[in-house]
Amino acid sequence: MYRMPYGFGPTAGPRQGPDYKRFDCSNAPHRWQAAVSFLTDRNHLDRLLPPGFALAGDPIVTVEFRVLSELPWLAGRGYSILKVNFPAAYNGKRDKAVGSFCSVLWENLADPILSGREELGFAKLWCELPPPRIMGDRVTCTASWLGHEFAILELTDLAEAEPRNPAFPGLGGQAGDGTLHYKYIPQTGEWGKAAVAHACLTPPTGGPTVERLRLGTGRVNFRPTTWEQMPTQFHIVQALCALPILEQREAWCVEIRGDSDLSQQRALV
Amino acid sequence: MYRMPYGFGPTAGPRQGPDYKRFDCSNAPHRWQAAVSFLTDRNHLDRLLPPGFALAGDPIVTVEFRVLSELPWLAGRGYSILKVNFPAAYNGKRDKAVGSFCSVLWENLADPILSGREELGFAKLWCELPPPRIMGDRVTCTASWLGHEFAILELTDLAEAEPRNPAFPGLGGQAGDGTLHYKYIPQTGEWGKAAVAHACLTPPTGGPTVERLRLGTGRVNFRPTTWEQMPTQFHIVQALCALPILEQREAWCVEIRGDSDLSQQRALV
Amino acid sequence: MYRMPYGFGPTAGPRQGPDYKRFDCSNAPHRWQAAVSFLTDRNHLDRLLPPGFALAGDPIVTVEFRVLSELPWLAGRGYSILKVNFPAAYNGKRDKAVGSFCSVLWENLADPILSGREELGFAKLWCELPPPRIMGDRVTCTASWLGHEFAILELTDLAEAEPRNPAFPGLGGQAGDGTLHYKYIPQTGEWGKAAVAHACLTPPTGGPTVERLRLGTGRVNFRPTTWEQMPTQFHIVQALCALPILEQREAWCVEIRGDSDLSQQRALV
Amino acid sequence: MYRMPYGFGPTAGPRQGPDYKRFDCSNAPHRWQAAVSFLTDRNHLDRLLPPGFALAGDPIVTVEFRVLSELPWLAGRGYSILKVNFPAAYNGKRDKAVGSFCSVLWENLADPILSGREELGFAKLWCELPPPRIMGDRVTCTASWLGHEFAILELTDLAEAEPRNPAFPGLGGQAGDGTLHYKYIPQTGEWGKAAVAHACLTPPTGGPTVERLRLGTGRVNFRPTTWEQMPTQFHIVQALCALPILEQREAWCVEIRGDSDLSQQRALV
Repeated sequence: MYRMPYGFGPTAGPRQGPDYKRFDCSNAPHRWQAAVSFLTDRNHLDRLLPPGFALAGDPIVTVEFRVLSELPWLAGRGYSILKVNFPAAYNGKRDKAVGSFCSVLWENLADPILSGREELGFAKLWCELPPPRIMGDRVTCTASWLGHEFAILELTDLAEAEPRNPAFPGLGGQAGDGTLHYKYIPQTGEWGKAAVAHACLTPPTGGPTVERLRLGTGRVNFRPTTWEQMPTQFHIVQALCALPILEQREAWCVEIRGDSDLSQQRALV
Repeated sequence: MYRMPYGFGPTAGPRQGPDYKRFDCSNAPHRWQAAVSFLTDRNHLDRLLPPGFALAGDPIVTVEFRVLSELPWLAGRGYSILKVNFPAAYNGKRDKAVGSFCSVLWENLADPILSGREELGFAKLWCELPPPRIMGDRVTCTASWLGHEFAILELTDLAEAEPRNPAFPGLGGQAGDGTLHYKYIPQTGEWGKAAVAHACLTPPTGGPTVERLRLGTGRVNFRPTTWEQMPTQFHIVQALCALPILEQREAWCVEIRGDSDLSQQRALV
Repeated sequence: MYRMPYGFGPTAGPRQGPDYKRFDCSNAPHRWQAAVSFLTDRNHLDRLLPPGFALAGDPIVTVEFRVLSELPWLAGRGYSILKVNFPAAYNGKRDKAVGSFCSVLWENLADPILSGREELGFAKLWCELPPPRIMGDRVTCTASWLGHEFAILELTDLAEAEPRNPAFPGLGGQAGDGTLHYKYIPQTGEWGKAAVAHACLTPPTGGPTVERLRLGTGRVNFRPTTWEQMPTQFHIVQALCALPILEQREAWCVEIRGDSDLSQQRALV
Repeated sequence: MYRMPYGFGPTAGPRQGPDYKRFDCSNAPHRWQAAVSFLTDRNHLDRLLPPGFALAGDPIVTVEFRVLSELPWLAGRGYSILKVNFPAAYNGKRDKAVGSFCSVLWENLADPILSGREELGFAKLWCELPPPRIMGDRVTCTASWLGHEFAILELTDLAEAEPRNPAFPGLGGQAGDGTLHYKYIPQTGEWGKAAVAHACLTPPTGGPTVERLRLGTGRVNFRPTTWEQMPTQFHIVQALCALPILEQREAWCVEIRGDSDLSQQRALV
């Protein structure tokens, strides 16, 4: 598999080791996840959908913070993720799918951002994701960009629950056919035109091991953000900040071992 | 202009402000640059060329470290660059061009990496680029990835020279038709196939103001690097480390005001 | 000169090189500085004074952001500073002095914080200080701690002025006898007692070269901060946040070459 | 308890919350630790001892990497540690003690460095400590300073062992009377003289809960380092780099809950 720079030969990454083989992900990485969900206004969400997509079911937004460690493809290193999903359906010329639409996903390391955008069509961006603050049954996760804090996720009253798999109806966004994405790469020199523009699907993956599950209450807060504060991302934070929180829904904190390498990812037409 | 995430609308960036207008780059950014060049073995360089490219002229590699500041599109912020260029020619079905081929380029901020790769076809990667160490007529620049230092650029005996424009024959890689690139984006789900694969050209841009020029001697050192040390980039560092330094050539340090927004970038077929 | 760890021998630092000699600071470091001053309430400031100190003259607070580069003692590296000064007098048993009291000073590198606190008695703390955002005649400087932005300095309408030395009455806090500090080190095991507690004085230093001076208007904003957001420094930010801004005073942006190594620093009794 | 800046009032820290109370450390922080020990030459170690100290028992150096999380005094945040200990005895005018001497300790956050140096007399310095790389039964920990990697700790063949408390004879350096330190603060203005100079003792603390213990083999590698690479710390790394490794000893990886707040720390005379 190649990525830029092309001339140096194939690039190792999540789905291809230095020996061109895939990695064993059955027992690693370790994933610590905290998630908060809320009911919002259907019209606000509708405006965030790419072409061919429509809302499916209740307009419930799930914001999840993940800490990945022991990643085989990063030689045992890790990184963190903040992602915003909601249920949607894709209705293409050939393909139809219903699932959890990943509207935006932040990571604090550029390497998985590049392979995720270009190989998988994940809408990944970079920001700072400090390690979560854990105080007994309370958890606080934040996201900032060059010092400007734009998102705060707070979970309280976390109580132990029986681990199960899937741990939670909405957990991991694997409801329905899987997770939906919209891949878009511009055409060089023809500004405004696309070189690549199509939906993508992450099918549900076999069962990682849920080691611990805690349920509680939670709240997410996206903060008002100007162009000067985040000149390439302010429009995203503003749109998320504008989503009304009509009702708080489930909040959970899980620890999981094992993952998919996402090599089942495919384009939808 | 759109980039992922698509659903939130157009994304501001180097060639498009929050008001959809272009930025005035006549007096900013400020660029501090230190560069070292050396003669290497033709066969080694030849292996680093993408399809359709051939070496042109002497196999002289130029390694340049740039510190950009006062960038209008980043609301006055900056970032740094390390890039490796050598002269090459592209011979396409329709287009022919000779110039400076940008084989790989590192930046220490993800946002320009994403727009650079996807809009322009620049082979940008992320690494840490600490501010240059400046001790009178000596300059040291280094690059590391999560703590592993993989490149060291050292310039000594820097002496003031008359500013001129272009400041140096090889300066800025603008010889010939401009700077050459190879854009490559994989096809999702069809691993090993390309969704986008073509050469790109950055035409020479009008004259930025050279405020200061110093000439001296210099040396670049790429360090042996294992997969465990840089699991997504070791093959690049190893290839650069293997380039024999047959003869040191020019080394220079310049300070420049003004730049192009690279909106003249175009695809070559 | 020793600092902890003691057993490895003398520690090189700002006032002692690896050869035990002092550094030549006549032409380096380079200092970029932006400062804002304002008139505040006398009673609020009074509460921030250590034992033996009293306000002197108008209660004018100066908040200054500095970017140091080309530091000889850091082998050509640099770091940044945010400091909060106001005029005060020290009336000791033996010594009397009037000057600019440095109430708190943040730096974004631990090494000068340690030598500054322990050798000089500077009240230095650590925070993140991103490079200033420079947009023509506007400058924005910010400070954050692990992602929580707690101070924003904004200067606008900056216009070129004749460089002079001292560039400005309040510039660099060198009015009167120099800059005043209060050194305090706790007694190990006897919690609440001091091992070291006395005032210190930085005498005015000979003239660095002012290369550029711009005057304008400015504003500083310290943001409300909880214990959870900055568990070791919230009380400082809260006190600064509570200072009423009765009147904006001078704002300036300067570039300077050369500095003192502060080896004239002395204890006041 | 006060620390600089004094004028803003008492400073919260590891041994004092915002309400002036101590923190409950019975179940948090969480500590992940990897340690390697080796037999070295007695004469080399002897030179690293402060006044009043002598080696005690075999010259065995233990290098330990710790990842702390869920720290109550940091509102649930964490940081990492790299420390170098060996057995020594202190023979003072009044006090005698035998224990594990902490010759140097690096942390990747300035706030605990300041309270540790000034309140406790720990020889703490700052460096970058990336999260450990964990690949099944292998662990790699590294330390760097502004991009220069100066220490690498590698553990292999880690096998589960029965958790016990103390988990290991040498574990945590709590053998004998506890951990020994040498506090040193310079006298301002009288360069070369001490304001504070005495030994300190950390008595053994009650039992934290060992959750997991793995034993294996390991190796530590300090890399040759110049003044230019680490201008304030090169002499320490050089001394550690020069220690001959005569024989590898125990290597272990533990996970622990609960800790002491070190308020039993006391001066030795």
